[in-house]
Amino acid sequence: MTKPSGYKVVRTSDVKALEVEEAGAEKARLKWLISEEDGAPNFFMRLFEVDPGGRTPLHSHPWEHEIFILNGKARIILGDEEVDVEPETAVYIPPNLRHSITNPGKELLRFLCLIPRK
Amino acid sequence: MTKPSGYKVVRTSDVKALEVEEAGAEKARLKWLISEEDGAPNFFMRLFEVDPGGRTPLHSHPWEHEIFILNGKARIILGDEEVDVEPETAVYIPPNLRHSITNPGKELLRFLCLIPRK
Repeated sequence: MTKPSGYKVVRTSDVKALEVEEAGAEKARLKWLISEEDGAPNFFMRLFEVDPGGRTPLHSHPWEHEIFILNGKARIILGDEEVDVEPETAVYIPPNLRHSITNPGKELLRFLCLIPRK
Repeated sequence: MTKPSGYKVVRTSDVKALEVEEAGAEKARLKWLISEEDGAPNFFMRLFEVDPGGRTPLHSHPWEHEIFILNGKARIILGDEEVDVEPETAVYIPPNLRHSITNPGKELLRFLCLIPRK
């Protein structure tokens, strides 16, 4: 909830999960934790959840991602490379680099993914 | 490490912790996970660690914070209010709101704190 003084405190369990509907996504959901609606002027925080065998779309776009793995295993396509990462890993994906994040594990994959406003 | 294609993958344990030296900080360290040096164009990701009884400075500044609590307990001053939060909580602190984060618990407090470039 956003307070009169403009701050927001929210638990992840209190945010509604939305299906990632872009073509190529499978078994992936996102929660907007801090967004334009909260008055965030420069960048937004989302939480992604990907079931085992699921994935985010393979795509590129002119804005960057800043990612932090919370739970589970992630296989990340980064241009022509592929890296496997675990919790306590930060990943910077620059603008226009093709990427996709797959869950190759047996547990739920959860990660924060922040994007710029513009 | 930042790759030729411009991405970066880094484990938190591989990043050097720097003491928070601003006046009023106690038993608080930070690690820069994604910064200007990595080419991030719009915002930066830091990890803070605060020992029990420690704190970040009580201050305000014209840029926002986007925070995610990873471990431990945090008591956050937000203007004239104070909130206690636990892991799996996101906090948006708007520009110019006075704030400080204290560790009132018995375990290490760890949280991500992102800031805009400018």
